[in-house]
Amino acid sequence: MLVLCTECEKIFVFKKQLDKCEKIWYNILMANKLEIYDTTLRDGAQGMGVSYSIGDKIKILEILSDFGVDFVECGNAFSNPKDKTFFNRVKNSKIVVFGSTNPAEIPALLSADTEYVSVFGKASSFHTEKILGISKDENLKLIHNSVSEIAKNGKKVFFLAEHFFDGYRQDPEHAVKTLQTAFDSGAMRLVLCDTNGGTLPHEIAEIVGKLTFANLGIHCHNDADLATAGTLAAVNSGVVHVQGTFGGTGERCGNADLSAILPNLALKMNYETNCNISKITETAHKIAEISNIKIPDKSPYVGAAAFAHKAGMHADGVVKCKASYEHIPPEAVGNKRNLLISEISGRALVIEKIKDVLPNITKEDERLRKILDMIKANEHFGYQYESAEASFELLVKRAIGEYKEFFNIKNYKVICEKTIRDKYVDTAVVKIKLPDGEVRLSVAEGNGPVNALYSAIRKTLKEVYPRIKKARLTDYKVRILDGGCGTAAPVRVLMESSDGEVSWTTVGVSEDIVDASIKALKDSLEWYLFSVDHHASYNNQND
Amino acid sequence: MLVLCTECEKIFVFKKQLDKCEKIWYNILMANKLEIYDTTLRDGAQGMGVSYSIGDKIKILEILSDFGVDFVECGNAFSNPKDKTFFNRVKNSKIVVFGSTNPAEIPALLSADTEYVSVFGKASSFHTEKILGISKDENLKLIHNSVSEIAKNGKKVFFLAEHFFDGYRQDPEHAVKTLQTAFDSGAMRLVLCDTNGGTLPHEIAEIVGKLTFANLGIHCHNDADLATAGTLAAVNSGVVHVQGTFGGTGERCGNADLSAILPNLALKMNYETNCNISKITETAHKIAEISNIKIPDKSPYVGAAAFAHKAGMHADGVVKCKASYEHIPPEAVGNKRNLLISEISGRALVIEKIKDVLPNITKEDERLRKILDMIKANEHFGYQYESAEASFELLVKRAIGEYKEFFNIKNYKVICEKTIRDKYVDTAVVKIKLPDGEVRLSVAEGNGPVNALYSAIRKTLKEVYPRIKKARLTDYKVRILDGGCGTAAPVRVLMESSDGEVSWTTVGVSEDIVDASIKALKDSLEWYLFSVDHHASYNNQND
Repeated sequence: MLVLCTECEKIFVFKKQLDKCEKIWYNILMANKLEIYDTTLRDGAQGMGVSYSIGDKIKILEILSDFGVDFVECGNAFSNPKDKTFFNRVKNSKIVVFGSTNPAEIPALLSADTEYVSVFGKASSFHTEKILGISKDENLKLIHNSVSEIAKNGKKVFFLAEHFFDGYRQDPEHAVKTLQTAFDSGAMRLVLCDTNGGTLPHEIAEIVGKLTFANLGIHCHNDADLATAGTLAAVNSGVVHVQGTFGGTGERCGNADLSAILPNLALKMNYETNCNISKITETAHKIAEISNIKIPDKSPYVGAAAFAHKAGMHADGVVKCKASYEHIPPEAVGNKRNLLISEISGRALVIEKIKDVLPNITKEDERLRKILDMIKANEHFGYQYESAEASFELLVKRAIGEYKEFFNIKNYKVICEKTIRDKYVDTAVVKIKLPDGEVRLSVAEGNGPVNALYSAIRKTLKEVYPRIKKARLTDYKVRILDGGCGTAAPVRVLMESSDGEVSWTTVGVSEDIVDASIKALKDSLEWYLFSVDHHASYNNQND
Repeated sequence: MLVLCTECEKIFVFKKQLDKCEKIWYNILMANKLEIYDTTLRDGAQGMGVSYSIGDKIKILEILSDFGVDFVECGNAFSNPKDKTFFNRVKNSKIVVFGSTNPAEIPALLSADTEYVSVFGKASSFHTEKILGISKDENLKLIHNSVSEIAKNGKKVFFLAEHFFDGYRQDPEHAVKTLQTAFDSGAMRLVLCDTNGGTLPHEIAEIVGKLTFANLGIHCHNDADLATAGTLAAVNSGVVHVQGTFGGTGERCGNADLSAILPNLALKMNYETNCNISKITETAHKIAEISNIKIPDKSPYVGAAAFAHKAGMHADGVVKCKASYEHIPPEAVGNKRNLLISEISGRALVIEKIKDVLPNITKEDERLRKILDMIKANEHFGYQYESAEASFELLVKRAIGEYKEFFNIKNYKVICEKTIRDKYVDTAVVKIKLPDGEVRLSVAEGNGPVNALYSAIRKTLKEVYPRIKKARLTDYKVRILDGGCGTAAPVRVLMESSDGEVSWTTVGVSEDIVDASIKALKDSLEWYLFSVDHHASYNNQND
């Protein structure tokens, strides 16, 4: 394999003469090191339901830079006016601007004033002839003209070979010619795109293995649930540059997900990158928060359930030996072990779990028995604590006498009303008793009885505990327990809340859906008041 | 490779003498055909936030049987009392009961009275010695005793080799011995489990390639985002039996997802199964609804965005030529293309559905356009008809002018109240207008606002339409449609009803949970009145 150094412009034989050249290629090619190229802000933004303001883009660019990604593709300078403004305003050495081989786009790409430019062109003769409607030679000319023009202006060019794998299967000669043309015109990287996401990993490995270029990159899509595997296969076959998005956002089923690929490369395949893998969970969640998407709990490596253990045997195994049901230590990716308290879980697991609240508890501790009895009684009634950690913590506090009530809902009345004019209004009146004995009455309207009650309760609490203002509900789930009697059956309500930084979940069970919701609501607000108090007293101690 | 026929108990050389044996092995091994084993109801239920009632299990079992899965693992007869009841009550030739090599479990496994039994045992010497705390020989004895005892009782045994790949890397000799022992003791399949989900696909391929058994299965987990790829790699290396769950539910990051694996096997690798791949989208969504989980839009093959085209160029390309940005035709998996100009999209699918109500409708029928417009408008608002067939039928009736209103809810008022004595009472007052113009007012109490409303509405309707007495609600599910705003976001309510013989499901969407419930409730009662009328007039004709 030959290696081109783009700075000294010499070609080296891979892993032999390169130690003579001190340029950027050295690190990448000699030390099993890979370049990471993030396209969350461009390809990711083409996903259903994703869109970024300029402020969002600036924040995500910063997060990615801190994490250690080498290149951040930030948008399309030609077709998107918002992106144009972004490039005018923001400067960062990692920014890449994206556009096509269309000659009309070149001025916009140059005026974005970035060090790196990505140019995508067709690598498939089918697309060239049927979709673009030009001849193969014209296509090669487009590639040559755009890449060389941009390279001549001192930019480093990534050539993105669109539909490369499909193109290679149909017409390998033309597909390789597009790469050769881009290479000869001065492209620094030749990125092989599986644009439709349908190529199987062993096909990717086979095709990449046949290519003789040393400066290859890979760009996969997840339409066959194989983007991670395809990317790893390409790396194993010699590509040095990996593209993807955080959380796998992107067109259709999304792009390859860097939050799954990077831990695999670093922890299982011994590749080096500049990324700080131990911060990948935090990075993925920060980006998701700005993108207004939820990372599914079961996402590999970074999801809330990625190291969650439920079945008694699994959980007991993990307590005995951490490696027993974990493929990597969760700390390696900045995630944490999560032992789910469920009807099948044993005593060892509960102790492990309680340790967060009571670090010194032992199997013989009298309090443990009390806690276990309470869990059992509540589970029998329909409670489930596996995803309601905040309610679990309050249960432990109650069992050991460390609970204090911040407020007591004496009674409430909600009127749900559909008027003759087809409007619906829900009005809640709540009477709350405070710890000092004072009783306050408040009223609020809402979209549904629970929403109205929540607003009314908050009205009083905001006055008494102003620190509660930041807390808000973010998700609400209702489940009928064991069907058979429809709306008269007991229901379990799960509520997720957040203050913008921390998220917590609570649970409430009752035969009455409003009552179940109120229980979860009360736990949510009390848990937050406890945690804020805890931090406040901690900070006071440090004063 | 040798092949054992479990029925005639002869061993055949793979792909040579087997045509002499007419037993079940023939099809599987000769025709590139794979067995599919679903564990949604057992391993899937170990996922965070998933739990099934017996009714849920019965419904999912039926859906999986119709779809064509060969084996359905339904639960653990030893450790879970709910599962025990299930096995006593439900009979279906595809049911598999699950348990371990622990001798104490054997009576429960046998008394489940199924044709197939899955026994899992340790294939890792580390787990044998450190977690179970027994010697390797004792482990082999456990495997031998449990498998042979169950086989002797006339059951067909699947041996699930837990931690097989991790075990093989540490101590290949013991790992293979566990397989050999199970094989010699009469196990029909030896299923290789990547229990911790951390094995890379090329490692799976390599290890499977070294084994000389012909009756192998694969069971992957998705902790490295590689469960689909690992499963395909195992199939390519010769396994004949594939395990997974629908939607990839399961412990931690979940099991291998059959809704991604099966289309890859059928459409890209030319394997045959008994599954009807063109129904996989429908199947996956039905199961997800019952499981009360949402299939992420960008899920490969079956997600709502799997064939959605957003970028102008992609959408234009797809209009010019469907294959331009699609790796497979969406119809192949029963999914649909999702474009801005979508009046042509999914038309065939909708026709297929409408045929239940209008058997003779054609593509050119003017009414079809009307129905499609209504579906589109409602879907935009958050409706989903996949599991709400009764509401779909009413929609079709409305679009073609065959709908008549049995009753109209003019207005209602519900008072949800928690009294000072800690009792809660929900009281509903409903004003109903009947087709003849008469207006009736009724009042009822209930456990929750919806239950109270349902009782109040039924009070009036029972007087007017006595035949409604048999109908009752059997399940009620609520889902917040677009996270981020908690209880103020729009909600979708799914209601299941039954008259003891027929079950039907309806849907309602609104920003107000009570209003959404009322919509589903009204559809439920009206659908039943229509169907009873239909049968009544049919019976009258026969008089």
